[in-house]
Order: sequence, then structure tokens, then C-alpha cells
Amino acid sequence: MKIKRSERLVDMTDYLLNRPHALIPLTFFAQRYDSAKSSISEDLTILKRTFQDRGIGLVETVPGAAGGAKYIPYILKEAADEFMDEVIEILNNSHRLLPGGYVYMSDILGDPDKLRYLGRMIATQYLNQRVDAVLTVATRGIPIAQAASSYLNVPLVIARHDTNITEGSTVSVNYVSGSSKKIKRMTISKRSLDQGANVLIVDDFIHGGGTINGLTSLIEEFDCNLVGSTFFAEGAYQSGQQNVGNYTSLVKMENQDDGEMRITKGNYDEKIFGPSK
Amino acid sequence: MKIKRSERLVDMTDYLLNRPHALIPLTFFAQRYDSAKSSISEDLTILKRTFQDRGIGLVETVPGAAGGAKYIPYILKEAADEFMDEVIEILNNSHRLLPGGYVYMSDILGDPDKLRYLGRMIATQYLNQRVDAVLTVATRGIPIAQAASSYLNVPLVIARHDTNITEGSTVSVNYVSGSSKKIKRMTISKRSLDQGANVLIVDDFIHGGGTINGLTSLIEEFDCNLVGSTFFAEGAYQSGQQNVGNYTSLVKMENQDDGEMRITKGNYDEKIFGPSK
Repeated sequence: MKIKRSERLVDMTDYLLNRPHALIPLTFFAQRYDSAKSSISEDLTILKRTFQDRGIGLVETVPGAAGGAKYIPYILKEAADEFMDEVIEILNNSHRLLPGGYVYMSDILGDPDKLRYLGRMIATQYLNQRVDAVLTVATRGIPIAQAASSYLNVPLVIARHDTNITEGSTVSVNYVSGSSKKIKRMTISKRSLDQGANVLIVDDFIHGGGTINGLTSLIEEFDCNLVGSTFFAEGAYQSGQQNVGNYTSLVKMENQDDGEMRITKGNYDEKIFGPSK
Repeated sequence: MKIKRSERLVDMTDYLLNRPHALIPLTFFAQRYDSAKSSISEDLTILKRTFQDRGIGLVETVPGAAGGAKYIPYILKEAADEFMDEVIEILNNSHRLLPGGYVYMSDILGDPDKLRYLGRMIATQYLNQRVDAVLTVATRGIPIAQAASSYLNVPLVIARHDTNITEGSTVSVNYVSGSSKKIKRMTISKRSLDQGANVLIVDDFIHGGGTINGLTSLIEEFDCNLVGSTFFAEGAYQSGQQNVGNYTSLVKMENQDDGEMRITKGNYDEKIFGPSK
């Protein structure tokens, strides 16, 4: 029995959304629905237009016998700004201020709906670049890194401060914590990255820049390439702190003269969506 | 301009898939597409049937003026078994055997595609129960816990072995590690769980049962209810180890007489899908 177009559209949407950046051959869909390739092509045209109109992402169609369709998730600037305005308003609630000038944000980074938005934002910046893995360091950066890895559909690799017998042979680097100036150490399994892989760093917070230097050293140890680095929050820099180069931040935290913390937009607008026209 | 049915179906599928367990009012869709409620009802009938036929999940429709639609993700036993057979075959590769009888599995727990399957499997077991939060402990359990939290669409809460100034006031418990018999300590932010919440424990590995006892103590400290606990892997029990009660495991690891490790199916079949008929 042939499957109706309406059912094909629903199932193809689910199928593609669950496999970002993967090329699905036309023949696969044709067999799955016992339908002609020409019908599948028409379906994909509808998906492509709707995904674009609704800001869901790009459906790239590759023509020819070896052709197929690929879903590339993105988020539009308007949707990202609306979401980030909401996040910033939540973070600026004075009840979140912690002693020492910190802001409680673990709930934001554990909220599945917000993680979906954050993951799509990060994936948008790198949609045209080859990314083979997302690298983070335990603990708080893991959820946002995993969200990015999900939308880029590449492995998540977690560096740790402790070592664990279940990782097998490991590679460790020392680095200087930017904020405390202490020497720290981070470790990943030797099996977790392939030589030459293109690695994206994602973490929750950049302050002194020590962590990013540690992660960058790990990437160098593996002869991998650093594609970029994205942090949920960027802290204020003090003079004498390390230079951490080029990165993307979603929010920025600044101490005010009255001891309060003010959270504003990070540099994501320009980094993700480019110079405004 | 009215939106065509084909476009509505694609967008509604995306919209619902991104909001598991959330009730979306019919009026919301009617306004979004400038369409009559009766058309939206027909669309939902198509979604419901296709989601069911394809094993994507349940689309629950609530009739009446306050009615709407809710997507409840699940996975069918056949799809879960096929996926788990593949995972077990991968894990049984002898290259994964580590000194001390451990098996390397961090790559499985960092693979976004596998995490989607694992998350759906865990969400399937609890689809009829109220779950308010997923609780795990750093580090290796975080990705699978986050996958479950994503499909259940509830917050992810991470207990830690260290304490962190960015968590504010915290609650800590001591527990005895089941395997090493050492006293350990785990901590979560006071803000991370509401009193009376229904909490699901998800972690990567259960061996001596110490971690689950620690997490259960945390749940008690918050006057929360334990809904259940699911572990990716279950290790062999030795006599004298703690009784950890009722849990779900996806794979089981057993030492063989020849020093090799054999990985087999955990108890998920019965726990998730019920007694076979």
C-alpha cells in the first residue's frame, strides 16, 4: 500500500529532524514509502520551503543518482534575539546574585527547552564549517556542549579534572587557571579524538581564559584543529589576565559599581549572524 | 494568506517534536496558521496516526475549548531491541576491554544519535508517570541523563562530588561507595529541586550501588519522591555489596572465567516494555 503524501511529510520531517547534517538518499525515502522518486522530490520541495519559512533550518537537496536530502538546523536572528532577551531578563533577577559576584544559572543550563535554543544557536554559527567533535570540560559546560553536539550531530567529548579508570589511556595537559592563577590539569581519553579532527570548544563560562587555554592545548596534543569556541557566559576581564583570542559569548556579565551584577548580550549577534546590515 | 495543509503538517510536526509532554492549545495552531480549528483537528488526526504508525510517539488530543495536543515520545520494543543489539555488539568488541575488567564506553555515551535512542527508551518507561526532574551525578552520567530530560522535557539536575561557588547554598550527603567502600560526598544546589518533586535518577553505571544510595539520600533531603532509576550499564554484583532495590539497566556487564568481559541485555525489556506476551 502506498503511503499518502500527508503521512510522508510528517514522517520525513521527523526523520530529518532526528538526523541533522546527515545525507539521506532519495532512494531510502522512495523505498520507505513505496513511492516514486519524483513524488519524494516534490515532498522535499514542500519540506524545504516550510523549513525555510518557519526558520526551522535548511533542507539541502543534492540532485542525481547519488543524491538525497540533508537537514541543516539553524535559528533566525529574530528568534535567537527573542529567546536571549528572555534569558537575560531571567538572569538579571536579583534573587540569582550569589556571594562573590556570581550569578546562579545552573537551572538555565539544565532546562531542556533552553538547551534546544542554545544548541541551535551554536550550530547556526558553524553550519557551513566542518565540525567533527564538540569538546567541553566537566562539569557545568556539559549540557550546553551536548546540545550543540546534538544539532551538529557530532560526538561530544568531555575532558575531566580527575582521571577515571574507565577511560583507558589518557592524555593530560596542565594549564594556569586564569582566575585563581593555580596550575590545573585536564585529561581526556586517547580514544576520544581522531588526529586531524576539527574540534569546536563549548563551555558554560569564560572568565580568566585558563580553561580555554587548557582545552586548546589538548586539541594541539591530538594534532586536531580548533574550529572555534563558544561560551554561554563571558565574565569581565581584569588587567593582567590572559589573552584568550577569538570566541563567541551568548551573555556578558559585568560587575556594577553598586556591587550588583548586570547581564547583557554577549557578542553572539555579530559572531553568529554576521555584521548587521 | 492561509497556510496549506502540507505546510501545516510539516511545521506542526516540528513544533510538537520540540515540545514533548507540553499541551499546545488548538487555538494556538489555529492562529499560527490562520486556519479553522476544524482543519487543525484534521491535521492532528493525520499526525496522530502517522506518529503511531511510525513509532514516533503518541499525539494525545484533549477535546473541548481548553483542548489541545500533546506529543508524548516513545520507542517501540522492536526499534529499541534493534538499537540495543547494535550497541551490545559494539561494546563486545575486544578492543574496548580496559585493564581491571572495565569496558570503554564514553564514545557511546557521547554519540548524539545513540543518546537520542537512549533518551527515548528512558522516556518510554515513564511516559505515564509524573516526572518533574531528572537527577544524575557528575560526570559520565550527564549525557544520558540529559537525553532523558530532553524527551521528558523536564529539568536536568546534576549532583557533584566537588562544591562550586556558582551553585549558591547547597545540600550535601555522605554515602559509602559500593565498590571502594570509601565514604564519599555529593552536593547539589538548594535551588535545584522543589519540595515534593517527582525525581527520576539516571546514571551511566551501577556497580556497588553507592551512587544510587547517595542520590536517593539527596532526594529524601529535599522531601522529593523517587520515581525510578535507570542506568546505562549494570555491573556484576559481588556478595556483601549493597542492596540497591529496583532499577532499570540497558546493558549488563559480566566478567567471564577467561578474564574477558561479556556484555548482554540489561533488564530493560521487562522494565520498559512490560512482560512479553
